[in-house]
Amino acid sequence: MKEKFAELKRRLQEVYDLRGAIHLLYWDQATYMPPKGAAARGRQLATLEHLSHNKLTDPAIGRLLDELAPYEQELPYDSDEASLLRVTRRDYERAIKVPVEFVSKVSAHRAASFDVWTRARPANDFQAVKPYLEKTLEYSREFANYFPGYEHIADPLIDLSDYGMTAKTIQALFAELRQELLPLVRAILEQPPVDDSFLHRFYPEEKQKAFGEKVITQFGYDFQRGRQDKTHHPFMIKFSLNDVRITTRFDEHNLGDGLFSTLHEAGHALYEQGIAQELEGTPLASGTSSGVHESQSRLWENLVGRSRPFWDHYYPELQAVFPDELQDVSVEQFHRAINKVQRSLIRVDADEVTYNLHVMMRFDFELALLEGRMTVDELPEAWRERMRTDLGVEPPDDKDGVLQDVHWYSGFIGGAFQGYTLGNIMSAQFFQAAQRAHPEIPEQIGQGQFDVLRGWLTEQIYRHGRKFTASELIQRATGQPLGIQPYMNYLRQKYGQLYQLDRVTAPS
Amino acid sequence: MKEKFAELKRRLQEVYDLRGAIHLLYWDQATYMPPKGAAARGRQLATLEHLSHNKLTDPAIGRLLDELAPYEQELPYDSDEASLLRVTRRDYERAIKVPVEFVSKVSAHRAASFDVWTRARPANDFQAVKPYLEKTLEYSREFANYFPGYEHIADPLIDLSDYGMTAKTIQALFAELRQELLPLVRAILEQPPVDDSFLHRFYPEEKQKAFGEKVITQFGYDFQRGRQDKTHHPFMIKFSLNDVRITTRFDEHNLGDGLFSTLHEAGHALYEQGIAQELEGTPLASGTSSGVHESQSRLWENLVGRSRPFWDHYYPELQAVFPDELQDVSVEQFHRAINKVQRSLIRVDADEVTYNLHVMMRFDFELALLEGRMTVDELPEAWRERMRTDLGVEPPDDKDGVLQDVHWYSGFIGGAFQGYTLGNIMSAQFFQAAQRAHPEIPEQIGQGQFDVLRGWLTEQIYRHGRKFTASELIQRATGQPLGIQPYMNYLRQKYGQLYQLDRVTAPS
Repeated sequence: MKEKFAELKRRLQEVYDLRGAIHLLYWDQATYMPPKGAAARGRQLATLEHLSHNKLTDPAIGRLLDELAPYEQELPYDSDEASLLRVTRRDYERAIKVPVEFVSKVSAHRAASFDVWTRARPANDFQAVKPYLEKTLEYSREFANYFPGYEHIADPLIDLSDYGMTAKTIQALFAELRQELLPLVRAILEQPPVDDSFLHRFYPEEKQKAFGEKVITQFGYDFQRGRQDKTHHPFMIKFSLNDVRITTRFDEHNLGDGLFSTLHEAGHALYEQGIAQELEGTPLASGTSSGVHESQSRLWENLVGRSRPFWDHYYPELQAVFPDELQDVSVEQFHRAINKVQRSLIRVDADEVTYNLHVMMRFDFELALLEGRMTVDELPEAWRERMRTDLGVEPPDDKDGVLQDVHWYSGFIGGAFQGYTLGNIMSAQFFQAAQRAHPEIPEQIGQGQFDVLRGWLTEQIYRHGRKFTASELIQRATGQPLGIQPYMNYLRQKYGQLYQLDRVTAPS
Repeated sequence: MKEKFAELKRRLQEVYDLRGAIHLLYWDQATYMPPKGAAARGRQLATLEHLSHNKLTDPAIGRLLDELAPYEQELPYDSDEASLLRVTRRDYERAIKVPVEFVSKVSAHRAASFDVWTRARPANDFQAVKPYLEKTLEYSREFANYFPGYEHIADPLIDLSDYGMTAKTIQALFAELRQELLPLVRAILEQPPVDDSFLHRFYPEEKQKAFGEKVITQFGYDFQRGRQDKTHHPFMIKFSLNDVRITTRFDEHNLGDGLFSTLHEAGHALYEQGIAQELEGTPLASGTSSGVHESQSRLWENLVGRSRPFWDHYYPELQAVFPDELQDVSVEQFHRAINKVQRSLIRVDADEVTYNLHVMMRFDFELALLEGRMTVDELPEAWRERMRTDLGVEPPDDKDGVLQDVHWYSGFIGGAFQGYTLGNIMSAQFFQAAQRAHPEIPEQIGQGQFDVLRGWLTEQIYRHGRKFTASELIQRATGQPLGIQPYMNYLRQKYGQLYQLDRVTAPS
């Protein structure tokens, strides 16, 4: 059995190393690749993706999994070995259910659709992408139907990024959240607007970069095992547990943009850098779901990085970096500005409170499209209608409406968005549990110390990689199933104070 | 046949794309990889090298080559198709002769040997690397013996980088060259030394970089299909014909170091960028030998970049970039300084004239070691002895003697060095032929125009990739077999003028 297990690990390590190489090809494409390198890069990626798929679906892996099943039965559920077999079986069985021709067909369609979208968005031309989006919807349904027995057609798609979650449970959670968020948003928006004009003074890129890197180093991001580069869209990417890179962007007239991107991506990276080294080279060496991943980026960006204790410590340092720009701005003013709530059209620029309304709208539309309750044709108008209802603002065009996000134009419809809001909900539940275990955390944040918080997160979440599902992790770490109350309590308390909303802040 | 040919090309493209990915892994390792990413990177490289070897030696490729042999017979020798089949057969037959276990064993030994050398060199500890070097010699002989029927044991090793060349022909060429070089070097070194102290003033990196990149852009290096980054050792690397990158280094107290590295690597890159796009994705899309490659780096670095017409044009620009540092230096003084000949210990820092003496010594030692005429033990002393004889200078220690080059400590003994001097010899023969076809070339260089020269090189050399061997290329491009006279004429004329050597400059 030991030999068979070693043989399985050897084969999985090949897949893992190929995935690492694929990630480097993507990273280089987004950072340093010269423009005319694109065509060959697409070909290299297709070749390596194909090899990686073939290696994972090799029938020898299926045989080893079968032969090792009795061995797995004898091992504790949470042992590295049992977890490796369990998660590999899940990956393998999912991979073999989808014909390789379908994978190639979808891959080519994605590339074509993305290409059209990159031109359609600036041209505000929904009609150009419409046929591609209709095809994407068709492929998304086809993908789901390789997994018969689902409760909801979106479930196999949700499983891809948030394994174990279902349309039904997410719908229930989101309905509850929306019901509580809408009155909070309305109450905030009745208050006088916050002045954040000073965030748009001139902040030289180099100084922004140095300050952000100092902060994330103090968070615990290890530059010996990572680095930060510039890209159009910030992201985190991993080549191995000891090479976890982040990217950011800078706007010299928007101090918040680069800084909070850096903190956000560092949150993702802390998760990956915190995975136990024993899991390296296996399918367990990765974050467990998009929701849990997003919980960490949002926790470090928002619950830590936009908190008052954090800025009580760092604001004098920031003022010292930008003395001319910030000398007339108090920490209260700064803290209010970086937490300004407003009606806005673009999800990625939305504040912490309204952000989820953007996400839940997209999730609802995905379900409606997959179920056939809505057509692609009806999408732009439905988008405007829902923006009016939930956010009180209507996009003047599709560019800032239905065309704004890349997801549907470069992947499936279904499963693309729920992780963002699941992550927000989880972030507060994890943070509450961490504070329960270590009440000194806010005070430590106020001293620029993050070891206790990161230690708790590492112990409860990071080190396990994919050993546990999101639901298992949440139950183990917080003693509760996932629920919206910690998150709503957090928002009510924070924004109640910031906007002096006595009436709506009473905990329910 | 068309289908079989297409199937062969499809398989070869997989190998090509894997090689592109491997090169990106190496590039990243040398440029941006965080320090602790090294272990996983080694593993990823081993995995991809193994896959690439398996893909190339797949028996299906052998069958396709056999089946396509009659088709090849009907095609013109220099057609893309016949050349593809001919070169693939050569690669395939070489690859299958070497057992995969030997490849893995050597690969592991190289990594270990390199690792020991990186510490042994600064510690001046030849004894530490001795057992590794002895093993390397053993493996080098073993490699050669997988190719029975050779005339000289070094031939299969030389074939790896300079296909078609043999120990015998190179020995004859080098003996002739050494005989003519030694008196020239002695005559030069009898002259008063040249003052190059002003090259060691303070030259800020950013300005050096901008100037170098401007020059190579004018050479024709296409930054849309490449880029320049910084590394410890400069190199050129290719991911596809449309992504050919170079690296350089800067010493702010040595103007020549970074500038001529940039020109040198750009020469390599012009070759790769000049290969016909129709060859992309095949084994033909590469330079044909290390000698021809080096001929191009040296041609652009030395015959162009250290020539007087070149500096008549660029020196005023360089002075404008560094007005304080160069205002008291004339173009004559500058041109003499960048062509200063001197006794030196380190090959990579040697001037154009003495450089080949360093290389030929190493080549002779490789043959002596492989033949068993010399032991590894005798190498350090033999090194000192030959340095005294040929260069009139003796290394005070092994660090600046036998330990100075990485080649033997990370690869085979045999075939590692001859390309450098072959390249120098070829560079002058090619340049002479280009000038014969286009006598206006020196005048154009004096105007900062390189289109005619690059056009001739592209037509005669670059576009063919690996379609022709080095010898075929030289015969086609220059109408002659390789010979030392163009090179010696070039050196005699240039250095005769620079050092006013009337007596030795008469052509023989």
